[in-house]
Amino acid sequence: MAKDKSPRRPRAETPKGFRDYFGAEVTERRDMLQKISEVYERYGFDPLETSAVETVEALGKFLPDVDRPNEGVFGWQDEDDQWLALRYDMTAPLARVAAQFRNDLPSPYRRYTFGPVWRNEKPGPGRFRQFYQCDADTVGAASVAADAEICAMLADTLEAVGIDRGDYIVRVNNRKVLNGVMEVAGLSGDDKEAERGIVLRAIDKLDRLGEEGVRALLGEGRKDESGDFTKGAGLSDAQADVVMGFVGANSAVRTTLLSQVGSNPREADFLRRGAASQNANPNIENEAVREGFGAVWNAGVLDHLRGLVSQSQIGQEGVEELEQIAALLAAQGYGPDRIVIDPSVVRGLGYYTGPVYEAELTFEILDEKGRPRQFGSVAGGGRYDDLVKRFTGQSVPATGVSIGVDRLLAALRAKGHAGAPAPGPVVVTVMDRDRMADYMAMVGELRTAGIRAEMYLGNPKNFGNQLKYADKRGSPIAIIQGGDEAANGTVVLKDLILGAKIAENATLEEWKDRPAQVEVPRADLVAAVQRMLAQ
Amino acid sequence: MAKDKSPRRPRAETPKGFRDYFGAEVTERRDMLQKISEVYERYGFDPLETSAVETVEALGKFLPDVDRPNEGVFGWQDEDDQWLALRYDMTAPLARVAAQFRNDLPSPYRRYTFGPVWRNEKPGPGRFRQFYQCDADTVGAASVAADAEICAMLADTLEAVGIDRGDYIVRVNNRKVLNGVMEVAGLSGDDKEAERGIVLRAIDKLDRLGEEGVRALLGEGRKDESGDFTKGAGLSDAQADVVMGFVGANSAVRTTLLSQVGSNPREADFLRRGAASQNANPNIENEAVREGFGAVWNAGVLDHLRGLVSQSQIGQEGVEELEQIAALLAAQGYGPDRIVIDPSVVRGLGYYTGPVYEAELTFEILDEKGRPRQFGSVAGGGRYDDLVKRFTGQSVPATGVSIGVDRLLAALRAKGHAGAPAPGPVVVTVMDRDRMADYMAMVGELRTAGIRAEMYLGNPKNFGNQLKYADKRGSPIAIIQGGDEAANGTVVLKDLILGAKIAENATLEEWKDRPAQVEVPRADLVAAVQRMLAQ
Repeated sequence: MAKDKSPRRPRAETPKGFRDYFGAEVTERRDMLQKISEVYERYGFDPLETSAVETVEALGKFLPDVDRPNEGVFGWQDEDDQWLALRYDMTAPLARVAAQFRNDLPSPYRRYTFGPVWRNEKPGPGRFRQFYQCDADTVGAASVAADAEICAMLADTLEAVGIDRGDYIVRVNNRKVLNGVMEVAGLSGDDKEAERGIVLRAIDKLDRLGEEGVRALLGEGRKDESGDFTKGAGLSDAQADVVMGFVGANSAVRTTLLSQVGSNPREADFLRRGAASQNANPNIENEAVREGFGAVWNAGVLDHLRGLVSQSQIGQEGVEELEQIAALLAAQGYGPDRIVIDPSVVRGLGYYTGPVYEAELTFEILDEKGRPRQFGSVAGGGRYDDLVKRFTGQSVPATGVSIGVDRLLAALRAKGHAGAPAPGPVVVTVMDRDRMADYMAMVGELRTAGIRAEMYLGNPKNFGNQLKYADKRGSPIAIIQGGDEAANGTVVLKDLILGAKIAENATLEEWKDRPAQVEVPRADLVAAVQRMLAQ
Repeated sequence: MAKDKSPRRPRAETPKGFRDYFGAEVTERRDMLQKISEVYERYGFDPLETSAVETVEALGKFLPDVDRPNEGVFGWQDEDDQWLALRYDMTAPLARVAAQFRNDLPSPYRRYTFGPVWRNEKPGPGRFRQFYQCDADTVGAASVAADAEICAMLADTLEAVGIDRGDYIVRVNNRKVLNGVMEVAGLSGDDKEAERGIVLRAIDKLDRLGEEGVRALLGEGRKDESGDFTKGAGLSDAQADVVMGFVGANSAVRTTLLSQVGSNPREADFLRRGAASQNANPNIENEAVREGFGAVWNAGVLDHLRGLVSQSQIGQEGVEELEQIAALLAAQGYGPDRIVIDPSVVRGLGYYTGPVYEAELTFEILDEKGRPRQFGSVAGGGRYDDLVKRFTGQSVPATGVSIGVDRLLAALRAKGHAGAPAPGPVVVTVMDRDRMADYMAMVGELRTAGIRAEMYLGNPKNFGNQLKYADKRGSPIAIIQGGDEAANGTVVLKDLILGAKIAENATLEEWKDRPAQVEVPRADLVAAVQRMLAQ
């Protein structure tokens, strides 16, 4: 600040990458979070609200020898030289709480939370440095029943906020299966960490590069369209085959199922249509899927994976866990039309230790260029068994999900389900400055009747400004009482919604018998407003 | 961190002065804020959520030549050397928003907001460095109707969250009256700032020191019990008389009213009881006040103040504004049993430019030493006309109130109105690890019926641990299905609430015909749980 010779007046601006939320932007999010909370609480999850500020050592993102650890987070040094920082997610604070209160909390501990998190990253279009997360985690449960429960809860949550069944799919994978694949491919040693990293990143690019591109990255490397070369993992063909068996599991299963198409026309049609819709571009409204093809598909995927990792104990364990999850979910009625085993879910696999899951919205929206595309992922999570250990030295199993609040809200808006914003207030105009008490009494009566209402509080001199204000507020009705009306004991109600329609279609006959303005006895004010609002 | 050779494991602790909120602590606050929001929206206030982080120059708390401005706020330097900080209240961000979006917002702009604010102050018992505020402000309205509206809204808000009428009082004063008093006392010059400061601080201590103590501080000074001497403002007796006429307004009015007690016994009783209850220790349930003594009182106070500042234009303006506010409120039915003119409201007078108001809860609670005391203030605010000017150079009138969320919540808890915490979940125990899917199906059915329910997700080996878990969760019912029950197609419901009562009063006859445990057909699970919960 000292070197900045700026003018004396401060700039009225949020810092770069921060923004404000107004009116419906606030209430829509609040309403959505309320609905999510209701589902979470029904599942036995308890609310937790941790402080926004943590010690940097508790957040655990930084090496102790970094002098100013503000990479990625907003941090500062306290007066006693301790580094503090704003939380960057909800999981690190949960691990701290689980350690700090381990003797008081029930075990397992189910908790949910929502609130802002902060990231000290380069802001970009639609990318802010403060945003909301809504998380649910179960700490202290080793059983995959905990993972299955969260997947079911995720499905219920999406439906509760207004995403129709068929418009979403929860995909489940297991980090252990990938570990098994790595083992079978001879990539499990400590000395193979670099190769494993390249393989992970290659798998993560399946969507963009396709199977051929991934295959190239598993081998010598890949040259992209611009001519840039990315060095590959250098796997042998046999090793790459194993990994590709995992990467291409969905298409392999599809091929297998289509090869089984038999002579019964109905069954053939069932298999063909089901396999076509599962899994690359899930269209859950497909009749075959609804009729039960999902179970056939899940069984096919599990068989395929089982074959792939038959030589790896950890891999087999992973497949068994996926099988258990599918069975536990099926027992509650969550079939593969809602929750599906999908080996292509790799996002964040590096971080997790067991099952991982992701909720994807499958309906289409138009992208910036007007092209249709699937809405995509709105939530993700999985099992992370080592976070609490940092504090206590004891491993504590944990699994949980994080909903991207702003993305889900955008989806609800796209579907027209974001909830109605508060209606504009009825505006009582001020015709006579000396009778403010009368106008205020009108407002008081309307509010007492539960009607959103305001008296105009600006300078009343220019009546046009009062109507402009009412317009800006989205006001449905303006109340007017000048001297004549006051003498007659009446008030005038101006229907601003109807008025706007008439103004737009001034020639239309249909409005002629609906007056945009009525005069009623003062005593009937509330009833007349209620009638006009109900029209 | 570098110099601290602490063990490798991080401490699982919140930073000093920060805390976490669990379960009902979260939901009670959320419910209260929801009720407050409903009232605010009915009054036409729109929600606003600003970013938690502001530029230090926008917060405006610091001089530009202070190198590290973290006095009072949590601040840090951004990568481009700009100082950022966490907001310390909701008013500074509102001023920034009002300036930044002045061309887009309606004018007047009514907005409400709630959320955490942060203060970099020494934490103490019950004093945290992050806490909630809930504010409502009207920007751009010069009329005292805006102040009156907020006072009425404050009364409605307190009743909406569960404070009974008679248990609160909104007190209104006006900074201009005090300015007038200073003027009459000859303390209005620029060279008298030091004296005015001493006078303000002295007035602020009326509660603690009484009129005599304040009088001493207006003159030469005051020696306290410990012998410490506080230098006074050095006013002449005549000057001090004027200020004391303001400080002692309430007792002066009381004396006047009691001197008017006439011969009509009913009227005499009315005046005597009313004056006794107004205003030092308002007991609004007093019949005389309910019958209309409040209006007599308000008139008396206004007369007294009018006499005091008859020589000061600003002072007269202040009295007129108070009179208008009282009239506007009376027109809406907010009489002096709820909102009262009170010259003793001085908190924060230095900050405000016009009307100031404060909501006080008048019921008694016990303090730490078991002595009864009034609950006290839970909200305060007033008119501040110069905050937006910092940014734009143009003065913008504004008025608003801030509710101390944690204090109001403490009051609701003291009155037993904080809302019921979520009930503990029905816990489905795991008797047979191989039948997890069956137990999960039970949980699924209960949840679908809207019942909060969980399957036990810890290690099921020790059944005692499962019941201990259910106890810790405050669970009303445990569901048990061992091998025998499964074979018979039944489940056992254990009534844990009844069980606990029986355990406490094992000898009581009354429980003998209410079994704490029932066995029902599996198909009747949901209905049986609903019956037991309804008992």
